[in-house]
Formats: sequence, C-alpha cells, structure tokens
Amino acid sequence: MSNKTSRRRFLKTGIVAGTGLAASNAVAEGDPLITQKQPWNQDLGSGVDERPYGMPSAFEVDVKRRSVPWLTADPVSSINFTPLHELDGIITPNGLCFERHHGGVAEYDPASHRLMINGLVDKELVFTMEDIMRFPRENRTYFLECAANSGMEWRGSQLNGCQFTHGMIHNVMYTGVPLRLLLEEAGIKSNGKWLLAEGADASGMTRSIPMEKALDDCLVAFKMNGESLRPEQGYPLRLVVPGWEGNMWVKWLRRIEVGDQPWHHREETSKYTDLLKDGKARRFTWVMDAKSVITNPSPQAPILHSKGPTILSGVAWSGRGTIPRVDVTIDGGKNWNTARMSGPSFDKSMHRFYYEFNWNGSDLLVQSRAHDSTGYVQPTKDELRFIRGKNSIYHNNGIQTWHINTKGVAENVEIS
Amino acid sequence: MSNKTSRRRFLKTGIVAGTGLAASNAVAEGDPLITQKQPWNQDLGSGVDERPYGMPSAFEVDVKRRSVPWLTADPVSSINFTPLHELDGIITPNGLCFERHHGGVAEYDPASHRLMINGLVDKELVFTMEDIMRFPRENRTYFLECAANSGMEWRGSQLNGCQFTHGMIHNVMYTGVPLRLLLEEAGIKSNGKWLLAEGADASGMTRSIPMEKALDDCLVAFKMNGESLRPEQGYPLRLVVPGWEGNMWVKWLRRIEVGDQPWHHREETSKYTDLLKDGKARRFTWVMDAKSVITNPSPQAPILHSKGPTILSGVAWSGRGTIPRVDVTIDGGKNWNTARMSGPSFDKSMHRFYYEFNWNGSDLLVQSRAHDSTGYVQPTKDELRFIRGKNSIYHNNGIQTWHINTKGVAENVEIS
Repeated sequence: MSNKTSRRRFLKTGIVAGTGLAASNAVAEGDPLITQKQPWNQDLGSGVDERPYGMPSAFEVDVKRRSVPWLTADPVSSINFTPLHELDGIITPNGLCFERHHGGVAEYDPASHRLMINGLVDKELVFTMEDIMRFPRENRTYFLECAANSGMEWRGSQLNGCQFTHGMIHNVMYTGVPLRLLLEEAGIKSNGKWLLAEGADASGMTRSIPMEKALDDCLVAFKMNGESLRPEQGYPLRLVVPGWEGNMWVKWLRRIEVGDQPWHHREETSKYTDLLKDGKARRFTWVMDAKSVITNPSPQAPILHSKGPTILSGVAWSGRGTIPRVDVTIDGGKNWNTARMSGPSFDKSMHRFYYEFNWNGSDLLVQSRAHDSTGYVQPTKDELRFIRGKNSIYHNNGIQTWHINTKGVAENVEIS
Repeated sequence: MSNKTSRRRFLKTGIVAGTGLAASNAVAEGDPLITQKQPWNQDLGSGVDERPYGMPSAFEVDVKRRSVPWLTADPVSSINFTPLHELDGIITPNGLCFERHHGGVAEYDPASHRLMINGLVDKELVFTMEDIMRFPRENRTYFLECAANSGMEWRGSQLNGCQFTHGMIHNVMYTGVPLRLLLEEAGIKSNGKWLLAEGADASGMTRSIPMEKALDDCLVAFKMNGESLRPEQGYPLRLVVPGWEGNMWVKWLRRIEVGDQPWHHREETSKYTDLLKDGKARRFTWVMDAKSVITNPSPQAPILHSKGPTILSGVAWSGRGTIPRVDVTIDGGKNWNTARMSGPSFDKSMHRFYYEFNWNGSDLLVQSRAHDSTGYVQPTKDELRFIRGKNSIYHNNGIQTWHINTKGVAENVEIS
C-alpha cells in the first residue's frame, strides 16, 4: 500500500466525531502502526554535525516567498510575498518575510557600517554598530505591512491567493535601541521637528518622519526573531516605525537628519501618496489601519476534507493598537460569528484567529472583519472606494472575500 | 582607509557620553559619511526572485550550532548547541535551535505519517496529519531544555562558552492541538493514569508521562515559529511538554498509549535519572527549575570596547512559571543589582534581561540569579552539590560565573 493510497483510505473512511471536534479514524485491522512493521524504525538518521544552520524539510519545498514577474519592470525593484497560507501563529520566520526593494538587496559588512545623526542637533554623531549596541535595547514584536499590500484589489479581485493579495506583511520580534535614546545623545535643537531617515542601498531611500513618532516608539533594530537582521531586511541596521507603512522602515539605515519640516522626497510625493477620485492626492498617510484576512482556506489552500468539522484560520492587525476581536462570516455577511483568538496580543502586532464550524458541504462565502482597540472596524472594499475612488494603490484595508465551492476550492471574489 | 582601520579609529577616539548611556563619536572632518562618497550608492543589489527561502548574511557565518566531537561516540546520537551568545530577545530562530537525537534525524512524509492513540481508551484511534489539523489549535511559547544542559558543570567549570555550558535550550512559539482534545476524542478509561509517548525514529524513543500533565498544558505541535516543525525537531509532529525536560518532548510522535502505571523504559531508568552521592537515584525529576545565564559577555563573546558604558545581557527561565526578577552581580556576589527585563513574559518561556553599568576597566566576576513566580531562587552550584553530590549529569541549574579580564575576555570559572 503506497502512502498515497493509505492517506486516501483514511480520508475516505474518516468517522466524524459526534463531539463536533474533528474527524478521526478507528484503527483498522492490519494497520502498519498496529503491527509496527514500518521501515522507519530500522535506519539511523543524520547526525547533529550536518546542520550548523538548519533548513526546512524537503517536503516543505513549496513553502516559499513568491514574486509576480509581470508586476514590476525588474526584480531588483520589486516584491516577493509571504506565504501566509502556509503559516500559523503570529511569528513570520525570517526566511519567509516578504521583500520589497527599490534598488535590490545591499550587502554590508557591519564592521564598516555607520549610522550618522546630523542636522538640527547639538552634536553631530557617527555610530559604529558596536556603539549602538552599548545603548539600552528593547525587544518588541511588530507587523510590517507595505502600503501597497492588497493594492491590486482597488479595481476588483485580481490575484488568486492570500500570498499575493495580503502577503506584503510580516510579523517579527525585533531587538533594537529606541531611536529616542540616539536622538537624545545628539541633542535635538528646539526647532527640530522632523527626521529624514536615509538608507545605504542603491535607491537612496529617504523618508520624512515627524519627531513625535520618532520619540514615541521607533527602534533602530539590529536583530529580528533573535538573530541578526536578514540582508533583505536591511542588515545590519533598519528603522522600525511601528504601525506605519513599510516604506518608512528604512533598511540599511545610515543617516538620520533632524530638520524643521518634511523633505518632500520622491517616496513621499510621486509614490506613497493616495490619489483620490477628484485627482487630489492625500499625503503622509502613514498609519496602517485595521485589517484581516482568512488565510485558510484560501485559493492556494483548499479545504482537503469533505463536510464536517472545519477550521477557518486567519490573521488581523492594526497600526493603531491591538485587535481585541475579529468577526467571521461563512455566508457572505448574513451572519457574523466572533472568532477565537489564540496567541499573544501585542500592540501593533499580528494577531491569530480561528473559527471552528461544522461545514455542511455547500458553497461558502467567507470573510473576516477586524476590530481594533480604538473601536475602529475594518470596512468593506466598497466603503473605501466610495470615499477614495479606485485610483489608489495604497492603503486598501477592505474586507476580503473567498468563495469556497463544494469541493473545498477557494477563489478571490467580490460581493456587494 | 580600510574598514578595519576605520573601525579602530572610531573605537580609539570614542567619547564616552556624560549621560552614562553609551559611547558615541563626533563626526570627523573628511569622514566618508559626510562627503557621501561611499561606493555603496553606486550598484544595484540582488532581486526579489533570488531567495524563495532566505538565509542569514554571509557576515554571520559563525552564528551556528556547534557540536563537541569528544562528547559522544557518534554524531547520530549526540548534541549540537544553540549559539546563545549570538542571539537576543527571546525567540530562537528555527535554524539555530539545538538538536539532540538518540538515533539521528528521521525524515517523514507528512502524507503518510500517523499518530495512534491506544491502550486504556474507549476507542483506539489513528490520526492523519489532516485529521489533527481539524482540532482547535493554540499558539504558545515555551522553552525546551535538555535535562543534561550544564551537566558538565557538576564536576567543575569545563566548557568555555555559554553555547556549550547552557546551549541545550531553545525557545519557540508552537502551534499545536492540546493533547487533552485528542485524548478526549479517544475517551480515557477511568484507570488510565499514565501515557507512553513514542517517537518514530530509529531510537524508538519512549517516555512515561502522568495523565495530569497531559491534560494540563501539553500540545501535539506541528508548527514552530510560524512554519512547519524542522526535521531535527520532529517533523511533522512533536509532543510539547511545557517546563519539563526535553527528552520527554517526543519527536516524530507516532503513538500515545494510555496505561495505569509508568512503563519504566530505558530513557527513564538507565538515563534521565539523577544519581545522588549515596548511590541512590532520583527518578521522574521532570521539571526544569529556574535558571539563568549571562550570554554577553561570555567566553565566546568578549567585551570589545574599553571601560565605560557596558551592557550585560542574558536569559532566564523556569519550568514552574514566569521570571519576574533576575539579579546580576559584577563582583562575584558581593553586591547584587536588579536586572532590567525586556520582552514578553510568558509562562515556562525564556525571558531576556539586561544590566547596564559603567565599567571601570578592572576584572569582573559576573553572575546572574533568577527568581521565578513561585518564589524559588536559583541556587549556587555548591548548594546543589551539597544535596546531590557530583555524580549527576542532569538538572544542573546552578549560578554560572564568568571571569572578565581587563581586556574584556571572559572565562568559565567557579568561586566559593
């Protein structure tokens, strides 16, 4: 009996438990587990010296970041996406955190990297990495979402998979020095009201940040999920701007200039502004509003069993606080149910939710709706379009709908 | 000017700030950052399609698990160690979680893997991976410590590096189904008081676990830090036994038998028992008591600067709860200071602490001492030896001492 046949047998003969918990299977006569004649007890595996840095199982080869070749002109100024449908909990593993670059991944030797603080300060400073690590550091978990996440959805459902519709986000525990401490070391002049954060990559990434945010919760981070930043996430140093659009989290951070007004650079004028229907553009729309998505089932992750106990799983987040509640519907919004949250609830961090129900095997229209700690409720895409039109690329936090057919296959759809 | 020269210049001319925060450097005339003539703005980096699964920077090649060839007869039944001195925060990245196997790493196709529950149950069951994922799951962060962690220290300081003295620990956010739910699905008979957990690897790993613990907080886990378990951590399924010795966290979990008494198998008789000085052995010493270690500085991670603002960093954990407080001394216990905790405080999880002080440049004897939420205080190694003698291998949670010389170099020492 091949593994495939074996699996099919169990799935077909599955007995749905009366408790409503899940399917399970009575032991069949002659099952290999009963007779204990599996080959897996016969051979030694590989030793501990073979993996100085470990990798996922070969069976997980499809769990990967994916890019969309037609989306941008060149892969050095493009995006790949986090496979949200393959993950659980709230931590994104470093190897699967989406990437977005404007000039490719810069690689720097931390021994020669420097961070400069100049402009309206009492004392201009240049820090080595070792200097920075002599300041008191903190450990905090934040989501980072690209402003363009779900951007394709403004003009209708387009991409079939939450990896592509919602995968420009990751959630990581950072270790870094509060930016406030470095600014205080330099001494901010009384007219210093804005910062320019500058990256050392080929795109010369720069963004203006108001001083109030810089002094509140920004970090100059050097570690993510315990280890050094990954090259594609700004190794050795990145700015963490909690709850605000990802483009401001400047990677390969090399300079912070203090000024008395914003700089109006390229990335905050021609890009990362929101074009409204009347042709005017909103600027400095930094905060990522409350949002959620059902990751399982979704177009890349169908339901694999027939009717019976079924689990919906998803993630929710808000740039304004925590997510105390997520609603889930399986009938396109006729009835809403409160999801079960599981895992840590950190400020401006991803939250994990589940909804367990007994599927009757018919079509489903599944949606999730996040509530954040300010009382804000995630809107529909149409509610957003009513106010902002369809010209925008950024800040689409509308409710996502998946249609699930009777075979468990999911598709990106819109309902009104 | 080479990078090395440049770094030395900054370190030599470092001006220690009067605020006691850290050293930083005034900008020097002609500094490359001022003139902005670095080459790093001239070249595009690599694109987003080059890393479906990302890896650390090439500059981090020494951040790796390490094994000790003389420690065991064969690497398939051995240990490698987490590089604690290279990490920060509380999450251990999956690629750096220490490994301990008794028959090498087993590799299984999740499609053919099964978990069986048999013995004193109403209905014997066999679960596929998909069956298990239809039960409500939870996300919780726990440390896993091998009972033998710091085992070499019973007979005096031996290994020079916290990776080797304390590196048989990792701390991970797990996603899994409460074991209680699977047992309830099978129905535990009234005389079912113990479990036997059995792994599918070549060692035939088995451990007896009391029912009370199984129903309390054990998980049948399939994800770690968001993604599937790594092969060396039991892919596709491992038992999570929070706060208890790592050997019980059976990997490649394939069977759980319910019985009315413990099984007294090899791993709970000839191994994983504590031989006392009178020749008697303590059995079933499952809980990992409160413990801590200073990870920086430590023998593999010297202080790189001269006197002035200095940061001690370390980790603490307890199998009985949280760590509300860690004490730190820099003078071998004459004076104790309360460390600053930063990061989440989860039940039975690693905690991160820091102690910032102004180093006067003379020799240091640094120690940390954990207090857990039950009021228990981490003992000295001599206090442990007074009660248990020096025959033990397991459960050494004594206070660790590093001697730091005037050059910042650390060494494993004992003081009484």
